[in-house]
Amino acid sequence: MVWDGGVLRMLDQRVLPRAEQWLELRTWQEVAEAIRDMAVRGAPAIGVAAGYGMVLAAQAGADRATARAGLAASRPTAVNLFWALDQTDSSPWEAGAILNVAKRIEADDLAMNQAIGRHGAALVPQGARVLTVCNTGSLATAGHGTALGVIRTAYTEGKVQHVYACETRPRQQGLRLTAWELIHDGLPFQVIPDGAAAFLMSKGLVDFVVAGADRIAANGDTANKIGTYNLAVLARHFGIPFTIAAPTSTLDPATPTGAGIPIEERDASEITVVEGVQVGPVDCPVWNPAFDVTPGELITAIITETGVHRGPFRF
Amino acid sequence: MVWDGGVLRMLDQRVLPRAEQWLELRTWQEVAEAIRDMAVRGAPAIGVAAGYGMVLAAQAGADRATARAGLAASRPTAVNLFWALDQTDSSPWEAGAILNVAKRIEADDLAMNQAIGRHGAALVPQGARVLTVCNTGSLATAGHGTALGVIRTAYTEGKVQHVYACETRPRQQGLRLTAWELIHDGLPFQVIPDGAAAFLMSKGLVDFVVAGADRIAANGDTANKIGTYNLAVLARHFGIPFTIAAPTSTLDPATPTGAGIPIEERDASEITVVEGVQVGPVDCPVWNPAFDVTPGELITAIITETGVHRGPFRF
Repeated sequence: MVWDGGVLRMLDQRVLPRAEQWLELRTWQEVAEAIRDMAVRGAPAIGVAAGYGMVLAAQAGADRATARAGLAASRPTAVNLFWALDQTDSSPWEAGAILNVAKRIEADDLAMNQAIGRHGAALVPQGARVLTVCNTGSLATAGHGTALGVIRTAYTEGKVQHVYACETRPRQQGLRLTAWELIHDGLPFQVIPDGAAAFLMSKGLVDFVVAGADRIAANGDTANKIGTYNLAVLARHFGIPFTIAAPTSTLDPATPTGAGIPIEERDASEITVVEGVQVGPVDCPVWNPAFDVTPGELITAIITETGVHRGPFRF
Repeated sequence: MVWDGGVLRMLDQRVLPRAEQWLELRTWQEVAEAIRDMAVRGAPAIGVAAGYGMVLAAQAGADRATARAGLAASRPTAVNLFWALDQTDSSPWEAGAILNVAKRIEADDLAMNQAIGRHGAALVPQGARVLTVCNTGSLATAGHGTALGVIRTAYTEGKVQHVYACETRPRQQGLRLTAWELIHDGLPFQVIPDGAAAFLMSKGLVDFVVAGADRIAANGDTANKIGTYNLAVLARHFGIPFTIAAPTSTLDPATPTGAGIPIEERDASEITVVEGVQVGPVDCPVWNPAFDVTPGELITAIITETGVHRGPFRF
């Protein structure tokens, strides 16, 4: 994501890795639409985009409350979105002032991810085979990444032998985005179908699991990409550490447990249509929650920029 | 699958549900290729196809041992394939005689599935929400189905409230084939992404899990479509019965444990390319085992045409 003299430029994640297309967003409505349609995704990146969305609104002299509400309504689960909008509230409604806030959100996120990487890498065993899910790298954040940031830092420290990236249906962020980042960085990895996690773990090929988060309740219950809960249960069964990496902007102390986190359900076509091709039956009924909620009890550690937190969690 | 005066006609499962195309196979080599490329799949259906493959070989006056070995090499995991070829061994090498064997294999499979359906339905609780994986219906067998046969019979008996079909990446047999069969039969159902199973179970929405099998070792360890092991671990975690439905032709008493079952690994393109569209990075490294092996300890019951078997299993 690049703020480019009054225009927000972002890589369109819907068409990666097939094409590297940059969107040029000139209104807050375009930013809201980019979030809603997942041209940009990943909880921290959504927060950063929302900050710049407010800059575009201020720049156009739009109604502040309308823009704020429109951006807040773009996606319901990730709390970083609301956190970022909160950050802009105390500044005057003037493009320069809001731009300062947006740039600070972005810079802080990068710094937080680097700290998360350092704290998390300390937990990764030497020679680890690390499993992750979805995309939590540079594309999902202001840079470096959360869970993928932990993997990156641990790899730089010589601790990571191999990375396994779950494909992460329906949007295939693991196959499309995480694989793209790992190829770029030259890390040794393989994509696995989401269904292959138990078989992989049963072979003793996974030493550490790390996932991101879209919202963490006060008791550590964690909303993250659908499929995370599967991995947490499997990791517990096979005695493998299961960890969450996220900045403190993902914490939601006002929500006591995961039961209070609203879970977005997305369209059936995300499952039945792939790249414009109708794969499943037309009008096939589908249950498509974008996130699941992993109970805090199944989480070995939650890694934030402030350090490593262990259960029972109380945020 | 229809034997049609010297030609084996089969619905091409690679293009369902988008198109209903019938293949006309005239040589055993074409049958072997149809099995290898998964135009026909499902352990019992592969066995039936192999029987007719031997008829085509006898009809053409082909070398018996060559045809037998060629068909046996088409796919390595499902034991029904080898079982069906064994059935043809005691008949003279003459098309009429082998045809009688092939027709008997097919008729017996249908009868076995109906018996499996009866035995299995007795285990399904009243008003059950049933979760299944892959396709184990008419397309995977000579008719009725194994795991889907249990669901069909239980539904007919008024016991099934809802069916959840795992999409089953990479080949999406749940989305493409099971959904197609369930729509045809008018059963209430939804497809879920494979990663959504834990979240679904955590909501109390699954009362019973039933899956098919490609090979069952003497101790009950069961090779089945990748993703089955995930479901078995999750079902144990959530206290839900996890069952396997398969004809006795799937049992392999000569293999003591699952460690002895050869697991086919298929091409990376099954993950990275969907319907001819390159979704993942080109040359993306992938781990793509077609099957996993669920330990017998995680299986509540194995349902065959002879009845319901409970662990510790000894076949």
